[in-house]
Amino acid sequence: MAMNGAQSLIRTLVDADVDVCFTNPGTSEMHFVAALDDVPQIRGVLGLSEGVVTGAADGYGRVAGKPAATLLHLGPGLANGLANLHNARRANTPVVNVIGDHATYHKKFDAPLESDIEALAGSLNGWVRRSPSTADVGADAAATVAAAQDAPGRVATLVLPADVSWGDGGTPAAPVPPRAPRPVASDVVKAVAEVLRGGEPVALLVGGVACREAGLRALSRIAKATGAKPFAETFPARIERGAGLPNIERLGYLAEQVAYQLDGVRHVVVAGTRAPVSFFAYPGKASDLVPEGAHVHTLAEVGDDVVAALEELADEVAADVEPDLAPAQRPELPTGDLTPQNWAQVIGALLPEGAIVSDEANTSGLLVPMATAGAPRHDVLTLTGGAIGQGMPVATGAAIAAPDRPVINLESDGSALYTVQSLWTQARENLDVTTVVLNNRAYAILRMELQRVGAESSGPKASGLLDLSTPDLDFVRMAEGFGVPATRAKTAEQLAEQFRRAVSEPGPHLIEAMVPPLL
Amino acid sequence: MAMNGAQSLIRTLVDADVDVCFTNPGTSEMHFVAALDDVPQIRGVLGLSEGVVTGAADGYGRVAGKPAATLLHLGPGLANGLANLHNARRANTPVVNVIGDHATYHKKFDAPLESDIEALAGSLNGWVRRSPSTADVGADAAATVAAAQDAPGRVATLVLPADVSWGDGGTPAAPVPPRAPRPVASDVVKAVAEVLRGGEPVALLVGGVACREAGLRALSRIAKATGAKPFAETFPARIERGAGLPNIERLGYLAEQVAYQLDGVRHVVVAGTRAPVSFFAYPGKASDLVPEGAHVHTLAEVGDDVVAALEELADEVAADVEPDLAPAQRPELPTGDLTPQNWAQVIGALLPEGAIVSDEANTSGLLVPMATAGAPRHDVLTLTGGAIGQGMPVATGAAIAAPDRPVINLESDGSALYTVQSLWTQARENLDVTTVVLNNRAYAILRMELQRVGAESSGPKASGLLDLSTPDLDFVRMAEGFGVPATRAKTAEQLAEQFRRAVSEPGPHLIEAMVPPLL
Repeated sequence: MAMNGAQSLIRTLVDADVDVCFTNPGTSEMHFVAALDDVPQIRGVLGLSEGVVTGAADGYGRVAGKPAATLLHLGPGLANGLANLHNARRANTPVVNVIGDHATYHKKFDAPLESDIEALAGSLNGWVRRSPSTADVGADAAATVAAAQDAPGRVATLVLPADVSWGDGGTPAAPVPPRAPRPVASDVVKAVAEVLRGGEPVALLVGGVACREAGLRALSRIAKATGAKPFAETFPARIERGAGLPNIERLGYLAEQVAYQLDGVRHVVVAGTRAPVSFFAYPGKASDLVPEGAHVHTLAEVGDDVVAALEELADEVAADVEPDLAPAQRPELPTGDLTPQNWAQVIGALLPEGAIVSDEANTSGLLVPMATAGAPRHDVLTLTGGAIGQGMPVATGAAIAAPDRPVINLESDGSALYTVQSLWTQARENLDVTTVVLNNRAYAILRMELQRVGAESSGPKASGLLDLSTPDLDFVRMAEGFGVPATRAKTAEQLAEQFRRAVSEPGPHLIEAMVPPLL
Repeated sequence: MAMNGAQSLIRTLVDADVDVCFTNPGTSEMHFVAALDDVPQIRGVLGLSEGVVTGAADGYGRVAGKPAATLLHLGPGLANGLANLHNARRANTPVVNVIGDHATYHKKFDAPLESDIEALAGSLNGWVRRSPSTADVGADAAATVAAAQDAPGRVATLVLPADVSWGDGGTPAAPVPPRAPRPVASDVVKAVAEVLRGGEPVALLVGGVACREAGLRALSRIAKATGAKPFAETFPARIERGAGLPNIERLGYLAEQVAYQLDGVRHVVVAGTRAPVSFFAYPGKASDLVPEGAHVHTLAEVGDDVVAALEELADEVAADVEPDLAPAQRPELPTGDLTPQNWAQVIGALLPEGAIVSDEANTSGLLVPMATAGAPRHDVLTLTGGAIGQGMPVATGAAIAAPDRPVINLESDGSALYTVQSLWTQARENLDVTTVVLNNRAYAILRMELQRVGAESSGPKASGLLDLSTPDLDFVRMAEGFGVPATRAKTAEQLAEQFRRAVSEPGPHLIEAMVPPLL
């Protein structure tokens, strides 16, 4: 069958098991859009803006363990989606990032939408290819899918000029095997074992795929046998936790927390992540959070076979030791007006079995990990790159990837407002997402940061810019505007009742929880 | 008085008459935020996402004729605002684009929010400077303000590392004069006069500042005296029109329209814009819209003193000719269910004196120019760069720049959904913006484009991706969620009554007009 470039691209994607495409297309992508109907296996999912599209691709990739495709409209479409691609890059999520461009012969005219796509895509430090002709599209697409899945995973971009897409002579290409994780040499493992046996205080910090069950079990065994302090990285792409799994503490967001966590440590062993650094710089405070004089040892780099290395290390130093597993244990259901403490207990008390938690609760969410440690087994997806507006799209993509699992989106008000359009996609696709917006009517984290950076003044203009009242935002009406049923909770009892109902009904729900600021 | 870098920056901005800062700040910008309270003359305006912030700066600059500052949070904040900066770039709007960055010594740690700011800012083809030390900030700020205002205007970016901002030793700098428009040589004007006198059909196409009253009057005189066809560029940043001003037709968006408009033309004279090109490429159709065999003559480049050149040309070929001015004339108020025709007549019948119209009505707005040609004098701000999501932020910034003028935002549903968060800033600042959302429940323009690019299939997946029903979007609830009172109009009578009330009351209003698609 004769194919155009778009058809060969989609056929190649599907043959490589990439069968979901998140998009907000434009004129230059119309042949791709038309071709979706020619390949039954692919599903197109519309987002109302590109921040939804790319964040959903990130959430999908984290949960499915394989990439979705995006389809973005020229440089401005990529720009709108870039912040959530930044988060995906920090999460090492596999994403096949397809960007339509003007026809090859049209670019020299510098039409209004012309811009430097390569400069933007290149900023992701990933992989960028421009398909030069229709005959190349299939092979380029196969290479892009493989690049996205090269360990540890990345955003791989394919630029598709309109005439390359509509031209005849497209040829699908067979899947290309991605690069597997690099094995860790046994002498590296043995050297770390020596450190652990050396008698000095050790912290063992894991990240990436090591935050899944196998890695955490190995970590727990090592810690139990050697006395090393085990930690997960601050913002894991996906961490498995709950009853029956090791409850591994995450390194804190604040430098002060990390200083407490690593107090007295003489060796920091890292596996699948890097040595801890401060999220921001603060006047007179260190950016490097490794305690003064402590040594850093790398068991496994990002992209190495981290889990195998941890398991080999566990067998070396903890041969007969079983991991410590969290007991099944939930908080009591609290009562009274909502507080930063009791809303987290409601979630802990009612979190459904097998939940996927997209966590962008920021300051409001500080106490959630404690409240949910003994809840039924669940996954938590976090804000890996610090670019807010990730939680709602990630929840959306996660729900597409795992239709049989309940998705819970714990979301701060300021972050929700970046990509609240996600709700419409959840409604359209009837996704089982329960969003709890913690409405504290402020950029509460910035109130804290204003003090932490030592900015002495906090006059009315500064405090006004960190305030989200005047006027109050009404997330119930907003959600209803996007087609998602919504309720408001002011007490713990209301939150419990509404949360229970939301997770028991199919389709999306939003609960606006009126929680005062933590600080 | 001892100052830190942020204080010297704001003092320098204010001394250069830059006294509005649109922002969504983060931790690295906290000293800038605190410093706002130290300089009474500057006003900080918060947007809920950076697309609002940069689009508002664009609207402000178009109307105020001088730049606002932005304040954006690192690379991801810039990325979120980049599409509307792209539009500002195409509008030649002066914008002082300030981007906070990590402290100089912190960058090497590659903290989660680290990304390549220069690559993103550089894609705007503008002017990018990174302030290396606190002592330099004042001079760098003054240079940035001047760069923003160099004729014809541009987005000029200043990157401000956190430690440069919080460091002591800031010194404000005096304003630097920007580059004035380049004068056009008299022999160029005389050569164009010869073309106009040559007896062959001529089209005269103006853009940029020539779309304001003085340029349009000169254009009308030239056209009247010589028989040349006068046109304004397709998407002017700001065009003045209405009763008492020349009614100059804009070149069409569709290549087919332009072919009709330029039919038979042997010479195309351009002034303050470039020769017409197709917005997109279409299979088998020309990208260059200059009629085959016609000659292009440049009277004035973008950045030249276009208005002076047009006036000199008018004095040369139309010495005693007065311009044709539109008579005061409004459509009758229509009745019945809303249609793509009658809603425009309602606007034409009721447009208030001195309105600023932010027009992103796209296909729904095709008939607005005819309906408003004889309305009271008004300005129209258009979608210069094709990146949708511009209309609501531009209206917001325009209202800040001109608090005594009514701002009317004609907005298509698909575009509104990109930056609907703008409504909250309108509510918070109590801006006199009346938004009319044309809800046709579709990306109607893409339905048209799907056919125009010759994509034969339009199966259910393709048509689903161009559809904005399932579920229906409720802009009334959405607006209320953001604190803006809203109503819905299904008939022309309802629209007229609601529009009249909205423009007569202070503060923002939204009207959701249920208008079926044009095509």
